[in-house]
Amino acid sequence: MAFTMSKKKTTIQLRVNYHQVDQMGIVHHAQYAYFLEQARIDWLHQQGVSYATLEQKGIFLPLTEISIEYKRPLRFEDNFFVHTSIDTFEPYYVAFSYHIENEEKTIITTAHTRLVFVDGKTMRAMKCPKFLQDKFTF
Amino acid sequence: MAFTMSKKKTTIQLRVNYHQVDQMGIVHHAQYAYFLEQARIDWLHQQGVSYATLEQKGIFLPLTEISIEYKRPLRFEDNFFVHTSIDTFEPYYVAFSYHIENEEKTIITTAHTRLVFVDGKTMRAMKCPKFLQDKFTF
Amino acid sequence: MAFTMSKKKTTIQLRVNYHQVDQMGIVHHAQYAYFLEQARIDWLHQQGVSYATLEQKGIFLPLTEISIEYKRPLRFEDNFFVHTSIDTFEPYYVAFSYHIENEEKTIITTAHTRLVFVDGKTMRAMKCPKFLQDKFTF
Amino acid sequence: MAFTMSKKKTTIQLRVNYHQVDQMGIVHHAQYAYFLEQARIDWLHQQGVSYATLEQKGIFLPLTEISIEYKRPLRFEDNFFVHTSIDTFEPYYVAFSYHIENEEKTIITTAHTRLVFVDGKTMRAMKCPKFLQDKFTF
Repeated sequence: MAFTMSKKKTTIQLRVNYHQVDQMGIVHHAQYAYFLEQARIDWLHQQGVSYATLEQKGIFLPLTEISIEYKRPLRFEDNFFVHTSIDTFEPYYVAFSYHIENEEKTIITTAHTRLVFVDGKTMRAMKCPKFLQDKFTF
Repeated sequence: MAFTMSKKKTTIQLRVNYHQVDQMGIVHHAQYAYFLEQARIDWLHQQGVSYATLEQKGIFLPLTEISIEYKRPLRFEDNFFVHTSIDTFEPYYVAFSYHIENEEKTIITTAHTRLVFVDGKTMRAMKCPKFLQDKFTF
Repeated sequence: MAFTMSKKKTTIQLRVNYHQVDQMGIVHHAQYAYFLEQARIDWLHQQGVSYATLEQKGIFLPLTEISIEYKRPLRFEDNFFVHTSIDTFEPYYVAFSYHIENEEKTIITTAHTRLVFVDGKTMRAMKCPKFLQDKFTF
Repeated sequence: MAFTMSKKKTTIQLRVNYHQVDQMGIVHHAQYAYFLEQARIDWLHQQGVSYATLEQKGIFLPLTEISIEYKRPLRFEDNFFVHTSIDTFEPYYVAFSYHIENEEKTIITTAHTRLVFVDGKTMRAMKCPKFLQDKFTF
């Protein structure tokens, strides 16, 4: 359903800070992992989930896979958009995909991440708690 | 040939610094991109190539793809080893693979990166310069 | 004059990202240097100066001194405000002071930085160019 | 006594990594906070104190003040030395001073930090525990 789909697709706007740029004059590739993290945590907020609160409840979501394709560079003071959507949701993990666009809607980067549900006390994988499941369903 | 192969496989030893750890108490996933970068630049040094000098000559090697699988966490003050080897060498790009092990030789992370040869003046892809080619051949 | 003073005092609002927090559960002290940088570059923007454009013209503003006092911690997802004002403007340098407040207007951090005008070609100190001088005067 | 003094003065050698350099081609000023942290934790190790173990015992040492003077820049692949010594030791806090030199023994940076002893459970200031006190005395 269109409405549900859009609820599960979110966008944040960011601007390149000075320290994020390397001596080639482009955003250092590692910085994108931070952009994706911020986008993912915002996605959770849009579903009514505070990641801070999740961790306080002992539910951790560490990353187990990341892949990023860099198509065009970003430079200092560039504005850009990170679009986030859910890819897969399984009892033990959730996968997101992302694409980053500049102000001209040119694709800068595409990316995927996979995260597992972990019990913060034992640091072992666990099933996604019931109250969270509907947040991740399409 | 064993000798050639070992010349193309390098290892660096690192230790987790305090600021690299997040509030889950494990090394933040983005930090691994820095570990791989340091390992890759060391690999080049072992072949007699200074990446600083390459850039001064206007030969840039920006990253176009990264993928990382996180199997086990690292914690503050852990010692670990980054093993680097060349995967593919083509006229326009070079790919490396990595695995990170802890002191007990347990696999922590595996990773792949792809880099393109870029002309620093035009920021356009170019063929690997002749004098560099033999550094990347197996 | 009140109007001029307020023109020279700016405020940005930020929110703590996950990766900025260390294993004590508080924002790592080094992150504040990035907050101050972003606040300072925004201050310049409010005076009509793009730091990106300055660098393209060969005018660099490297930092020569920083001092920060940490009074209270910030935690993940906290909103906070960085207030920036100009302290001193001399032919060769400019100094800013900052204070960071949380949403309850409690002081989190106070800080000072000093930056010098540098010729990007020679990397030597130079006098602040004429067209910039009025941006920094009170 | 000379021996004691040298025990309380330590040096680590580091090398500038690629990601630590900004688009001016010099090490970004915030990176120095990480160099000082690594030097300080090494200083503790030289006195037989593991900071990881301290935190596990619930003894935290957050930073309350930092000041850095940048005299000369560092560039990619530069080797440098961070010299650390204890400045002041009081029941509730400890202060360190640092100077960073390049390979030619030219001063790059001088710095000071102040840290407080904090009870990890309450996150409140506390007196330095007895078993630690002699580590900090001159």
